[in-house]
Amino acid sequence: MIQNFADKLIEAVKAKGNPICVGLDPRLDKIPESIKNRALAYTDDNGEHLSPTAAAARAIFEFNKGIIDAVFDLVPVVKPQIAFYEIYGADGVKAYADTLKYAKSKGILTIADAKRNDIGTTAEAYAQAFLGEVQIFEGENEVVMPIFEADSITVNPYLGWDGIKPFVEECKKYGKGIFALVKTSNKSSGDLQDLVMQDEKGADGKGKALYEIVGHLVDSWGADEIGESGYNFVGAVVGATFPEQAKRLREIMPNTIFLVPGYGAQGAGAADVKPCFNADGLGAIINNSRGIIFAYEKLGMLPDAYAEAARTAVLEMKKDLSEIA
Amino acid sequence: MIQNFADKLIEAVKAKGNPICVGLDPRLDKIPESIKNRALAYTDDNGEHLSPTAAAARAIFEFNKGIIDAVFDLVPVVKPQIAFYEIYGADGVKAYADTLKYAKSKGILTIADAKRNDIGTTAEAYAQAFLGEVQIFEGENEVVMPIFEADSITVNPYLGWDGIKPFVEECKKYGKGIFALVKTSNKSSGDLQDLVMQDEKGADGKGKALYEIVGHLVDSWGADEIGESGYNFVGAVVGATFPEQAKRLREIMPNTIFLVPGYGAQGAGAADVKPCFNADGLGAIINNSRGIIFAYEKLGMLPDAYAEAARTAVLEMKKDLSEIA
Repeated sequence: MIQNFADKLIEAVKAKGNPICVGLDPRLDKIPESIKNRALAYTDDNGEHLSPTAAAARAIFEFNKGIIDAVFDLVPVVKPQIAFYEIYGADGVKAYADTLKYAKSKGILTIADAKRNDIGTTAEAYAQAFLGEVQIFEGENEVVMPIFEADSITVNPYLGWDGIKPFVEECKKYGKGIFALVKTSNKSSGDLQDLVMQDEKGADGKGKALYEIVGHLVDSWGADEIGESGYNFVGAVVGATFPEQAKRLREIMPNTIFLVPGYGAQGAGAADVKPCFNADGLGAIINNSRGIIFAYEKLGMLPDAYAEAARTAVLEMKKDLSEIA
Repeated sequence: MIQNFADKLIEAVKAKGNPICVGLDPRLDKIPESIKNRALAYTDDNGEHLSPTAAAARAIFEFNKGIIDAVFDLVPVVKPQIAFYEIYGADGVKAYADTLKYAKSKGILTIADAKRNDIGTTAEAYAQAFLGEVQIFEGENEVVMPIFEADSITVNPYLGWDGIKPFVEECKKYGKGIFALVKTSNKSSGDLQDLVMQDEKGADGKGKALYEIVGHLVDSWGADEIGESGYNFVGAVVGATFPEQAKRLREIMPNTIFLVPGYGAQGAGAADVKPCFNADGLGAIINNSRGIIFAYEKLGMLPDAYAEAARTAVLEMKKDLSEIA
């Protein structure tokens, strides 16, 4: 029996006693020199140094392992942002897959922050690669294997249901989840998301904003997939930087888990993320990337102490969030 | 002096005498057995066979080279869809980069169909990886190199200007382009894109649809970037399956190059794509993926003749499109 991803995530949040998601967004210029020097000095079986992209990927993966080792017993979930890996091409993508696999081996859930979006067989290919299994070759050469082994992935809803359905199918099959962008945390997120619609009126007779309509869509996309926890595996990305909108979305999507960016580096605090939670204190995952993985900077610690600093930052964030519970 | 991407693309369309974009969306099950067997039999310097994903990637790249060799003198541009490469993980992504590089070496322009979307430094990372150059390490170890070397990339506009600006900056610096999703070709594209807005009324007093508003935004995003051709490097994805909407968008975005999916396999014909062109017969790139790269099926030819079949299909499509000029 396949467990609903929402149930796995809520279980993990309860077990760890906090809803913190650590964003694994490595930046080479902030990674300790010692790690970079080891990657640059590394020689393979043939005695050759790595290419620049392979050395960068090696450094990133070592850095990530340090973070995961330092926080895996504390947090329910990590979220590597794929752009920071794709920037090193295929080598970076290998470090991405390795990072997801390592997190899994440590028993924490993963969100592939890839914001993928497409239709038909193209969306199916993404869904199989990130969430499911891929069939390679046929007949006697056939191999069926997972590729990225993420537990969930972020997706962009602009193409409508056609772009979501192939992911939902993989989720059902493998106990995985998605988080669809609804109201993002950036300043210009209103360019499209805050536009007010003519045909759709709320209870107050006012037109609904696009983000509200998308909220209703996301709610409907997950309506058949509610687990024992009361939540479903079609989650929503809702920025902490817009608490009013988050409050409205919480009403529209009572059974949806919110993935909340914007805490910390983007300026939002515990009070701002409060509207993302339901009355039961559940229903939201609060992401923090730079504020945890590069906490050594703010804490005035040496770069080599980045893992210890990350642990300290998680504990501080846990305390901060507990005050709104 | 950096040439505007729009000018490069219009020049190529004029030189080749057609606006055809060949979609490189390889599917292992449709690739000739001979290519797959060569990849499976291949042994590296240590005498070892490739992993399943590496063998798949090798087969895909050989297939793509065959297509590019067969059509590079005929068409202005190719568009590899990255999902069909990511499905084989890091190995697939290497085949993706190799494909872009090979097309470039043959003098044709490339569109990375990746529909990337994010904000801030994350969007910057994507833009640098796909369109610009990436700095790896610092000081004596510093290397600055291109990663994917695409001429342009498709992007998703749901996050607003914050998600577009980092790409536009790279475009200016390196003479590259983007194509933002406006009205996509799929059946449920109207879920969001056809919603009618309250505050924005057209000349007829009717509310505008979201896709029209996005059209206006895309037009404004490219307004400062118009090249000698009269077109700018901020293009738009406009599906051939909705000719009425395409006509409306052509009016809203006179200086925008449309990348048009939906011709062929998705059911649209020459008459359907006509509204995507300006009166000068320019302004649109018509994509065909399966209808060209797997044309051997429809033409009743052997899989091994796929390259010849692709050339025949391009020539037929060119003739078909010339009838609407």
